[in-house]
Amino acid sequence: MTTSRLEAFSDGVFAIAITLLVLDLRLDGAGSLAHQLTAAWPAYLAYAVSFLLIGLIWANHHAMFALIGRADRALLFLNVCLLADVAATPFFASVLSHAIATDQDERLAVAVYGGSLVVGGIFFNAVWQYARFRPHLLVEGVASTEASRIGRRFLLGPACYLVGTLIGLLSAWAGITIFAVLILFYWLPAGSHERGGARPGDEVRPSGPA
Amino acid sequence: MTTSRLEAFSDGVFAIAITLLVLDLRLDGAGSLAHQLTAAWPAYLAYAVSFLLIGLIWANHHAMFALIGRADRALLFLNVCLLADVAATPFFASVLSHAIATDQDERLAVAVYGGSLVVGGIFFNAVWQYARFRPHLLVEGVASTEASRIGRRFLLGPACYLVGTLIGLLSAWAGITIFAVLILFYWLPAGSHERGGARPGDEVRPSGPA
Amino acid sequence: MTTSRLEAFSDGVFAIAITLLVLDLRLDGAGSLAHQLTAAWPAYLAYAVSFLLIGLIWANHHAMFALIGRADRALLFLNVCLLADVAATPFFASVLSHAIATDQDERLAVAVYGGSLVVGGIFFNAVWQYARFRPHLLVEGVASTEASRIGRRFLLGPACYLVGTLIGLLSAWAGITIFAVLILFYWLPAGSHERGGARPGDEVRPSGPA
Amino acid sequence: MTTSRLEAFSDGVFAIAITLLVLDLRLDGAGSLAHQLTAAWPAYLAYAVSFLLIGLIWANHHAMFALIGRADRALLFLNVCLLADVAATPFFASVLSHAIATDQDERLAVAVYGGSLVVGGIFFNAVWQYARFRPHLLVEGVASTEASRIGRRFLLGPACYLVGTLIGLLSAWAGITIFAVLILFYWLPAGSHERGGARPGDEVRPSGPA
Repeated sequence: MTTSRLEAFSDGVFAIAITLLVLDLRLDGAGSLAHQLTAAWPAYLAYAVSFLLIGLIWANHHAMFALIGRADRALLFLNVCLLADVAATPFFASVLSHAIATDQDERLAVAVYGGSLVVGGIFFNAVWQYARFRPHLLVEGVASTEASRIGRRFLLGPACYLVGTLIGLLSAWAGITIFAVLILFYWLPAGSHERGGARPGDEVRPSGPA
Repeated sequence: MTTSRLEAFSDGVFAIAITLLVLDLRLDGAGSLAHQLTAAWPAYLAYAVSFLLIGLIWANHHAMFALIGRADRALLFLNVCLLADVAATPFFASVLSHAIATDQDERLAVAVYGGSLVVGGIFFNAVWQYARFRPHLLVEGVASTEASRIGRRFLLGPACYLVGTLIGLLSAWAGITIFAVLILFYWLPAGSHERGGARPGDEVRPSGPA
Repeated sequence: MTTSRLEAFSDGVFAIAITLLVLDLRLDGAGSLAHQLTAAWPAYLAYAVSFLLIGLIWANHHAMFALIGRADRALLFLNVCLLADVAATPFFASVLSHAIATDQDERLAVAVYGGSLVVGGIFFNAVWQYARFRPHLLVEGVASTEASRIGRRFLLGPACYLVGTLIGLLSAWAGITIFAVLILFYWLPAGSHERGGARPGDEVRPSGPA
Repeated sequence: MTTSRLEAFSDGVFAIAITLLVLDLRLDGAGSLAHQLTAAWPAYLAYAVSFLLIGLIWANHHAMFALIGRADRALLFLNVCLLADVAATPFFASVLSHAIATDQDERLAVAVYGGSLVVGGIFFNAVWQYARFRPHLLVEGVASTEASRIGRRFLLGPACYLVGTLIGLLSAWAGITIFAVLILFYWLPAGSHERGGARPGDEVRPSGPA
């Protein structure tokens, strides 16, 4: 089948998962409103990081499917696995913000959050690796050198997140900082953090790992 | 009417129901985070099975509506009944995971979960049986032998789920295993579990019961 | 603007509101699972009626916008008011199921539920009445006799629901029965409950009040 | 990339955020149903204002992207920041309704709610200001005088909301009234609150700040 309905379904899941993050923004009802609003900062942090994260995956998913023209059953399956990871982000965000708010088990919570990024990155790569060796699934005119260059870029994602996860096991805040920096970094246009500089017309190229 | 807005609406319900499954991923707040994360495994299991299930129904729904070109009022109604069953999946998943987590009434919970699969499969078949005998609803070029072959394949779904449900009444884990195996099995490409083997270009054919 | 993005946005709200109904399907945790599942029947009733209701409004909304080709600011506003009523349905359904489950204030709950139907019907009619006297908003070829015939049919909706609401104030179950019958009745194809009988090609015509 | 998938994703977030507002409509379970329904009026108020607000942002977002034809990475990022603010509206609405219901810290709650409007307005303007100076992102035929006129109108939004926020710090109800009036005012057709009067064919023009 063509990928348009797959993209629409995926967009729906991305949009819902990103919006459900708001359900973890809650006040605990103890003390003045000013106090409660201030005390909820870990939830704001988890909200902001996770919102930018899902937005980034959405943008990269879009970029990847600009190169994939058809889907078969296995590709649908890999994509659903990716979505299952992304849709669980509100849970992982909640684990993270709760650990920070209660000052308990923060390193484990950061590692769990990071683990979900690694798993998501692996499924993202699985979709791409599956498609790139099946020319009838790609849109016409995607050269194999280009496909392999993009594949290398995508592979960087889970590797970076894995490093952040391991560091998070040693220091929660170091891990969180790495995730935040990675997410912001990958939001930059593809060209601007590569040797070649930004190029006009570059917009549809994938620019970072999931 | 054409089915494009029906498909978009259905896709929306599928995408929301599948994403709402995350609301049952919750920690109970007792003990260390490591303990809580481990103790929540029944919720992960229900999440994974239900996510793959709704994803499968979505894929098959898509495949079915590749053959249906127009909808009348009765078809809309049958489709809404199907959606009502699918949209309740987070409830059934929650019943299942809660029963496993508390080790109480597991067989009944498995049977209830399986019952929702049977009902979904019946409505799925009702949509197809309604459409296949009304040529003005089908897209052009769907031969009646093909329509009846597809119909037989769809009918297998609720029958298999009914067997799993009955077995689940005797042994909860046998029932869960059957559902998980069925769902994974039907995710396989249509050709690969049939005599003829996989064929290129086969992607739009429905490949399993709902 | 053209109405395609208005329809997509409305479809999104319909799909989400209809799926959020599942959040009111919850067990109270007291007693055996069989007992809890049985005791939750008011929630199933509210779920079924409300699901068919929102599905019906969606189908009629679709039919109405098959005749409306363009939207201006006021039409958007009236449509958003309609959506605000539809999106609150999970709340009204929850009020209804809770009143039945606790056997308290059922007549008021039915009247409140019915009131939301009346308000929805009024906004639905407001959208249509606004559009029908502005030919530049209608698609070409909608005759004014047809527009006024459709308008009369739409007007029947809130009137019927108002009767159900008033009767519900006297007898809760009489009111609920009327709503259920009305909703099922309006799901029937337009032709079949009119003198003329069903006609092929009739599918795009609006067939009932919101 | 073209903006169609960006618009679809944004529409999804708008539709979900607007529908999640219903989750704050809840009865507290104390006293008769009539009493509970009456006591929940602050939640109705927050629901109505926030529903019209998100609907307005959606309408203006649509109008803005009728002029923007392509998106690059930075535009996606600014748009995601806007969405993160809009998606948090159910949280801010809940803070507001809870403060009014408990009669505590109302001025702060109004200011927080207003602050979210200001931030949303700023991101809305950031999207537009980013696009308007990059002609390759605009659709053809948008004159620079028109772009700058629209930009001035958009800038009015956060300025007005900032005034409302500051006044809300002095008097909660004055602030709420200002927000409600502004939102209703900006729902009016563009022409009708400007010197020129309403013009036919004016529908696609942006008619107010976010």
